[in-house]
Amino acid sequence: MRIGFIGLGNMGAAMAANLLKAGHEVTAYNRSPDKVADLANQGALPAASVADACRGDVVITMLANDAAVEAVTFGDDGILGALPEGSVHISSSTISVALAERLTEAHTGAGQRFVSAPVFGRPEAAAAAKLFVVAAGAAGDMTTVSPIFDAIGQRTFVLGDDPKTASLVKISGNFLIASVIESLGEAMALVGKAGVDKQQYLDLLTSTLFDAPAYRTYGGLLAREEFTPAGFAARLGLKDVKLALSAGEDLQVPLPVASLLRDRFLTLMATGGGELDWSAVGALSAWEAGGASPAQ
Amino acid sequence: MRIGFIGLGNMGAAMAANLLKAGHEVTAYNRSPDKVADLANQGALPAASVADACRGDVVITMLANDAAVEAVTFGDDGILGALPEGSVHISSSTISVALAERLTEAHTGAGQRFVSAPVFGRPEAAAAAKLFVVAAGAAGDMTTVSPIFDAIGQRTFVLGDDPKTASLVKISGNFLIASVIESLGEAMALVGKAGVDKQQYLDLLTSTLFDAPAYRTYGGLLAREEFTPAGFAARLGLKDVKLALSAGEDLQVPLPVASLLRDRFLTLMATGGGELDWSAVGALSAWEAGGASPAQ
Amino acid sequence: MRIGFIGLGNMGAAMAANLLKAGHEVTAYNRSPDKVADLANQGALPAASVADACRGDVVITMLANDAAVEAVTFGDDGILGALPEGSVHISSSTISVALAERLTEAHTGAGQRFVSAPVFGRPEAAAAAKLFVVAAGAAGDMTTVSPIFDAIGQRTFVLGDDPKTASLVKISGNFLIASVIESLGEAMALVGKAGVDKQQYLDLLTSTLFDAPAYRTYGGLLAREEFTPAGFAARLGLKDVKLALSAGEDLQVPLPVASLLRDRFLTLMATGGGELDWSAVGALSAWEAGGASPAQ
Amino acid sequence: MRIGFIGLGNMGAAMAANLLKAGHEVTAYNRSPDKVADLANQGALPAASVADACRGDVVITMLANDAAVEAVTFGDDGILGALPEGSVHISSSTISVALAERLTEAHTGAGQRFVSAPVFGRPEAAAAAKLFVVAAGAAGDMTTVSPIFDAIGQRTFVLGDDPKTASLVKISGNFLIASVIESLGEAMALVGKAGVDKQQYLDLLTSTLFDAPAYRTYGGLLAREEFTPAGFAARLGLKDVKLALSAGEDLQVPLPVASLLRDRFLTLMATGGGELDWSAVGALSAWEAGGASPAQ
Repeated sequence: MRIGFIGLGNMGAAMAANLLKAGHEVTAYNRSPDKVADLANQGALPAASVADACRGDVVITMLANDAAVEAVTFGDDGILGALPEGSVHISSSTISVALAERLTEAHTGAGQRFVSAPVFGRPEAAAAAKLFVVAAGAAGDMTTVSPIFDAIGQRTFVLGDDPKTASLVKISGNFLIASVIESLGEAMALVGKAGVDKQQYLDLLTSTLFDAPAYRTYGGLLAREEFTPAGFAARLGLKDVKLALSAGEDLQVPLPVASLLRDRFLTLMATGGGELDWSAVGALSAWEAGGASPAQ
Repeated sequence: MRIGFIGLGNMGAAMAANLLKAGHEVTAYNRSPDKVADLANQGALPAASVADACRGDVVITMLANDAAVEAVTFGDDGILGALPEGSVHISSSTISVALAERLTEAHTGAGQRFVSAPVFGRPEAAAAAKLFVVAAGAAGDMTTVSPIFDAIGQRTFVLGDDPKTASLVKISGNFLIASVIESLGEAMALVGKAGVDKQQYLDLLTSTLFDAPAYRTYGGLLAREEFTPAGFAARLGLKDVKLALSAGEDLQVPLPVASLLRDRFLTLMATGGGELDWSAVGALSAWEAGGASPAQ
Repeated sequence: MRIGFIGLGNMGAAMAANLLKAGHEVTAYNRSPDKVADLANQGALPAASVADACRGDVVITMLANDAAVEAVTFGDDGILGALPEGSVHISSSTISVALAERLTEAHTGAGQRFVSAPVFGRPEAAAAAKLFVVAAGAAGDMTTVSPIFDAIGQRTFVLGDDPKTASLVKISGNFLIASVIESLGEAMALVGKAGVDKQQYLDLLTSTLFDAPAYRTYGGLLAREEFTPAGFAARLGLKDVKLALSAGEDLQVPLPVASLLRDRFLTLMATGGGELDWSAVGALSAWEAGGASPAQ
Repeated sequence: MRIGFIGLGNMGAAMAANLLKAGHEVTAYNRSPDKVADLANQGALPAASVADACRGDVVITMLANDAAVEAVTFGDDGILGALPEGSVHISSSTISVALAERLTEAHTGAGQRFVSAPVFGRPEAAAAAKLFVVAAGAAGDMTTVSPIFDAIGQRTFVLGDDPKTASLVKISGNFLIASVIESLGEAMALVGKAGVDKQQYLDLLTSTLFDAPAYRTYGGLLAREEFTPAGFAARLGLKDVKLALSAGEDLQVPLPVASLLRDRFLTLMATGGGELDWSAVGALSAWEAGGASPAQ
């Protein structure tokens, strides 16, 4: 397929590279052009503008937040104006439920198609084409774009025909990961202060009831206090927790653990840890218990 | 080995039966004698008193809470007075760190041995001899009693020579399970109110980052709203969360998620759900979001 | 002075009436015109449009939320276009810090003046001209508009020359009131379940360390469970708590009690209490403790 | 009256001195005898033992916690054994509901009387005989001991004939004070980070809706960051919050603000602030927002 790719951060660059490897024609755009040059060396066509990346069958956006997606979609020379009728915009970043809804309406109104397809996985998984894709959109569109998901991920979960459902499920999943970080952080602060070795403790957990990637990955970062370089920065974690809280407000669902996480992320940022990996919020319990701040 | 077994609830009866199957001589005691008769049918020797169950190499207690363990240990004709010198008291229920410490001192003072060996797993796992045993005690004692752990569980984790460490780790593990229940409950309330099928949602989670028994077991109970019969009653869940909070107080470690769970369990009990499975605390989020109370 | 008044709800109508009593010329606008007719009977000039209310020295907005203030200010025929150079826009409703900042810039850019002057007090206090005014703006403007504050309130607190400071202080004050509601609600649930009479309990509190209007007013509503008619509706309480959280995010200040309140307000709304007085959030503790829902 | 007084800390010494001033005969006991000598200089009779302080009509205990009251009451040569039939034990410290119940039963069983009469007020108020007394006990006993309350306080609130009610109300009152500290701390962290002067902010609050001693006293300590010397130490604040939580557990009333406070006090203690005034928990919000720790 002829695919435009907008947003070449840690995640996006790896995903676009895998699309190239799978034989697709990829036209790549990024705000800072050096990332485009890197990908051009792997066979991508460089795009000088957002509109230039919208000439094909599909354009994928993989951007930091709602504001960035809004800017490239609704701005001058944006996707909405440039994408051909019948072509598909796939949003693969974690966006708000409200924006997913707005994008669905706008693209439908312009005779275009919209699919929300956020992914689970850190940069290593993106590089290995091992992402999990959570996708929702019209059935026909899903068939059209399934080769793309096959090229970047190990499995795709289709969640019906309303794109915003995929965004909500992705948001809830990131909330669950952050919950793991917080609860593991509290447990490790507790047993750690009693002298239990954190790595041995984690081995016990992940050998028994908590034998899951979320515990192995984030528990490992916590046990090793390995918060740089950030696979996913704390300030982005705050963004995602706020998306969960915002979805909860729209649906009138109180989320006390998400509220706690919001305050944790703010604490981490206010004490200098905004650029640490988001797993560092799990180290705040040990700090409150008299230990060192993760940002120091 | 000649083993006394005190406490034949859902868990204890299954564990004692597996000791019998493994060829051990089991003398069983329970406050209500009908449970003893059941086990006698499987080959156990009935004990008429706590002291009667203390004539062998080892006595195991599997009781509901600290008070019950204290009663059978320190009471008239209790374990402390009846157990031969050199024999081992294994506490397999979840007891406080403070009680583990007190038992260690008391048994040592009486020339006896003490091992804390709480287990992870629900009644089904106990019946299948698939428990995980978390044990701590003097190295020599651990060697002595290891055949017991082999008979009841699939794997034993040895956590050093101080019995209270095993109790703390077990308490922290139950806290982590309760954290999974709460965070899954919040996430399911959120996506459920948006119309996502809870079982399909759980399948997605457990196929990806949350592929662990804790999520499959408790997520399944939550998705099916299957809170009776209780594998582990809510009032016992409250007890365990309070043990975590108490350990946190002794060690000066704040535990905000545990504090939230305490309030959740109290809410469940005050609204009539104290005998429901503890997974029902995860249904309180949907109740707060306008749905039905799990106790109705 | 020649004053335009936009927004004749419970609070605004009473404030505008007091301006008339003080001898000012008041031109009044409201989206639903029957409120304008009521005030015209008291001597006000009816305005057919927002712009019609912007011909004088000052225009006051007293509206439900940010969106309403934005609509009348930035919309077609809005305040920004209609207000004469040098005239003052006073925003007396509780608006976000961000909007206060935006209004300051926009009016300054248009050669107009902006003062943020939110008020503390319920409709009874507004009717009695007993409001407390919390005001910030350029010193000269404050002198100009001080007769207005004298006419509607018992005392004015001047908080410097940056209008957004007044908005922040007002937001923090509403947060403190909501905190009183929550903590009193918890305390009353506790002593009430033990059989203590709530009114007698409140008398004890307000005769001793808690001898303040916030405790007398909201404690009285809680003790009498008097949640209708709403002096200030729960959905507006949620709005104000969210303004506090939003200000906390911008300044990177975690606010755990505000987070709890957010969840409380969502619970009240999801269970049917969005139009109750915001003091009803204090009744959720008794509900969780097994009592009746305030919305039933 | 002939009064024994046990416990001459900051509060007790001032209360006993006021009993002397009112013309009562006071026999004083304290674990460290130098405090007894101080009071003897003011006219008290020194007691060499707890039992020596129990020869009169009334004995008052003003001690740090449940354990101390239990020790002097139930220990060898304790109050229970020494107090004459018909004499009254008044417990004026903040004790648990459970202990109030136990004391009522024990003294009744011994033909003695028990009144729970905790007090509100800091050492300055105790010295000025301006305490508020919250008392419950049999009507006849209350009449007997009312001159004592008149001598130490400005007003007495009688809460019925069950002593434990007074303890519960006192516990709930201390919880409300701690709630004021926390919510003021959050609000001051918010406006303080925006540059608002904390003392001016407090003046605004206490001139309007929050014109109460609790806000003036604790707000002043927070605005001045004046946490030493402690009028009431943080470790005692934790004790009282735990009494509230414990009462809530017995009555099945969840108390989320108390849960938050528990974690706050633990944080303060773990970071070195256990001996600071309990108002220091209100400074933790500013710490989390990037400011200095109150314990540094």
